[in-house]
Amino acid sequence: MSKVTPRTLSGFMELLPEDQMKMERLMQTLRETYSLFAFTPLDTPVIESAEVLLAKGSGETEKQIYRFTKGDSDLALRFDLTVPLAKYVAAHYAELAFPFKRYQIGKVYRGERAQRGRFREFYQADIDVIGDGKLDIMNEAEIPAIIYTAFRKLGLSRFKIKVNNRKILNGFYAMNGMAEKASDIMRIVDKLDKIGEVKVKQMLIDELAMRPYKAENVLDFMAIRGTNAQVIERLETFRGMNETFDQGLDELLAVTRHLQDFGVPEENFSVDLTIARGLDYYTGTVYETELIDHPEIGSVCSGGRYDNLAEYYTDKQLPGVGISIGLTRLFYVLQEQKLLSNEIVTAPCDAIILPMTDDPGPAIAAATKLRAAGLRCQFYAEKRKFKAKMTYADKIHAPFCVLLGEDEIREGVLSVKNMETGEQRKLTADEAAEWILQMIREKNAKPVIVE
Amino acid sequence: MSKVTPRTLSGFMELLPEDQMKMERLMQTLRETYSLFAFTPLDTPVIESAEVLLAKGSGETEKQIYRFTKGDSDLALRFDLTVPLAKYVAAHYAELAFPFKRYQIGKVYRGERAQRGRFREFYQADIDVIGDGKLDIMNEAEIPAIIYTAFRKLGLSRFKIKVNNRKILNGFYAMNGMAEKASDIMRIVDKLDKIGEVKVKQMLIDELAMRPYKAENVLDFMAIRGTNAQVIERLETFRGMNETFDQGLDELLAVTRHLQDFGVPEENFSVDLTIARGLDYYTGTVYETELIDHPEIGSVCSGGRYDNLAEYYTDKQLPGVGISIGLTRLFYVLQEQKLLSNEIVTAPCDAIILPMTDDPGPAIAAATKLRAAGLRCQFYAEKRKFKAKMTYADKIHAPFCVLLGEDEIREGVLSVKNMETGEQRKLTADEAAEWILQMIREKNAKPVIVE
Repeated sequence: MSKVTPRTLSGFMELLPEDQMKMERLMQTLRETYSLFAFTPLDTPVIESAEVLLAKGSGETEKQIYRFTKGDSDLALRFDLTVPLAKYVAAHYAELAFPFKRYQIGKVYRGERAQRGRFREFYQADIDVIGDGKLDIMNEAEIPAIIYTAFRKLGLSRFKIKVNNRKILNGFYAMNGMAEKASDIMRIVDKLDKIGEVKVKQMLIDELAMRPYKAENVLDFMAIRGTNAQVIERLETFRGMNETFDQGLDELLAVTRHLQDFGVPEENFSVDLTIARGLDYYTGTVYETELIDHPEIGSVCSGGRYDNLAEYYTDKQLPGVGISIGLTRLFYVLQEQKLLSNEIVTAPCDAIILPMTDDPGPAIAAATKLRAAGLRCQFYAEKRKFKAKMTYADKIHAPFCVLLGEDEIREGVLSVKNMETGEQRKLTADEAAEWILQMIREKNAKPVIVE
Repeated sequence: MSKVTPRTLSGFMELLPEDQMKMERLMQTLRETYSLFAFTPLDTPVIESAEVLLAKGSGETEKQIYRFTKGDSDLALRFDLTVPLAKYVAAHYAELAFPFKRYQIGKVYRGERAQRGRFREFYQADIDVIGDGKLDIMNEAEIPAIIYTAFRKLGLSRFKIKVNNRKILNGFYAMNGMAEKASDIMRIVDKLDKIGEVKVKQMLIDELAMRPYKAENVLDFMAIRGTNAQVIERLETFRGMNETFDQGLDELLAVTRHLQDFGVPEENFSVDLTIARGLDYYTGTVYETELIDHPEIGSVCSGGRYDNLAEYYTDKQLPGVGISIGLTRLFYVLQEQKLLSNEIVTAPCDAIILPMTDDPGPAIAAATKLRAAGLRCQFYAEKRKFKAKMTYADKIHAPFCVLLGEDEIREGVLSVKNMETGEQRKLTADEAAEWILQMIREKNAKPVIVE
């Protein structure tokens, strides 16, 4: 028979078993954290009507959309989790309680140019809080606590949650008579990290016909640095000149005031006026999260406040605040940078039972007992030589091996071997379960990311 | 602005939050069970190259495939999890250890005629054990233990795992000189449940030109009933007449011999000669699972042994055994039949904190403490009247409400109200966490399905 080459499309991540276990841990940690903050899990279809999905029209994105027909239906694959959320909230408005807090971890699709580290199918892990008509600023204040908790649980401590407020930026540009250029300025200022002050200044002058002293004003403003208190003190000097600015500053004060109550240490948080996040969607607080030792990765968790989630579907005013983690890309860079732990258990089992007698009955019964105690237990059924069995146990990195021969059966015990230390003990099934589970729990208490 | 109607495509399941929580429990229970039996989680792309996905050609299925082009690529959405597994194992053969045991819970796509209870996007929850060249019969014997454990954990006890062996059927037809008609006979006999013996006999005679006494032979064979021991005793009377039959009988004996060691009670298991499962794919043991009180649902967990997983991709002989649960359809019928529990916690939080003072600081700090103790805790931030806050807590079915006013802050306590019983206690944060967690754990120890 002629064979088809079994290939996976480029831009589609497909992991080997041990890496997949790490990915599962990453996802599980996020699910747990999002749940701690009372977000409810949602699941929406991957396929939507193209009319619904593209209601907003999406410019650059539209070219990347996977769009096709099936029968008479014009269909498309979701390219983010925000549009499906907007559809969901608009469609189920009457059945939801607001504020509505949901998390969704799901695959999205963008037919980007194939490129190393770029994915066409990738997981996003999103949370959003949606209000009905209005939404209290304290929802924005809580977001850094969620990011902080998630990243700490993942094993990171050297990260910085950077916060800004779009109203402060818009207000500042307005007070400098540059209100209508605000979007263009933000686009250029966004390059500060990459090209530096001198070039940004020149671009502001060349592309926006900005007077040099005004360009310097912008750069001076962006250069405001220091502790949160210091930055806010500088910002206070602009108070009273523009209403939007003052409003943004009040919001920033509210967001920073309760950091300690939220359990977020000052060293993991900074007000950063260079953060803008996209151009039109966000209207208030915006967030980015940087790994301090890996600034080249860029922001690994971003989002912000918006005023109108679902205006293409409903007249209801639905303000919200949300953040998103590009999980597939994050996993990819963690893997590349060798930041994923090799100490957690990534084997398919906690213990593998190798029967050493012709009758597999006692080994099966032992496996059943160990599973009842909560152990992930593999019963090795193949009739092969002892050495081949041990090679298999090694290859899957089984943390423990359980040997069951005539002697053990007669004595009513199991020979249990810790494959890492080589330590071997003869134990009853109950004792074995206890010993193994304790070691496994210790290993799995370690985080999935190492710094 | 003109609005687009926010609709979800027909044939695509989209659940409300509380139902979604039940679906998550269902999935989590399966993940845990599959893990206990040492299956490793896998995740493969939803989109594959059409050439790869349709390597086998798939007849009837092909019309249902979502197939489209993007750029120069001829793409298709996976229609099951078996073909992607075959591709995966063939592509990563050198990096895997065999037997390779994987589970996958993922969405698959079939553009079936829209119909109540039929889904175009649906979850399958699959496990497979793949051998390299050969695979011991004990892997087939373990499958009923996995089904049994999963269904018990889900909350079911009134179910029957029905097992047969294709070699027994093929051997029986061969010894009656009907080997070449085996597939057709199985197709017709499969209707026994629906149309009864008389009509099946007539179909065998009319459609297959079978002599009446031979049709009766077939029906007599299918009518063999009784305990496992009784059925096997009857089957033993056919031994020695056909090699394939004898081999199938030996396999059936091996599969039934260790039921007790595997912890599977006889009342949840039966040898059923009418089970055939598909026509060509399966070659040995086959499985179906029926809910005893709901036979109209049909089999809710099916599968079997096959000899060659990936012949379209590789010359390697890769035998395996697997089962699949159609999770979306199962959820749908459980919901329809009102078999999903309303006693587990489906709220987004275990406790909601309602601040009663202008300064939200103490309430935020309390939420942070409760979360650190492992409680899913919502901080209610909206500035609304007390009654509106309580209405919200009721609407999301929060199991506990935590009130924090001037008095509580002064005394360093929380007023905690059990929303189900109305019981109210003044407790420290630690005490509150303990009380609430205990109640939540009790609720969540209950299974998701009620019989």
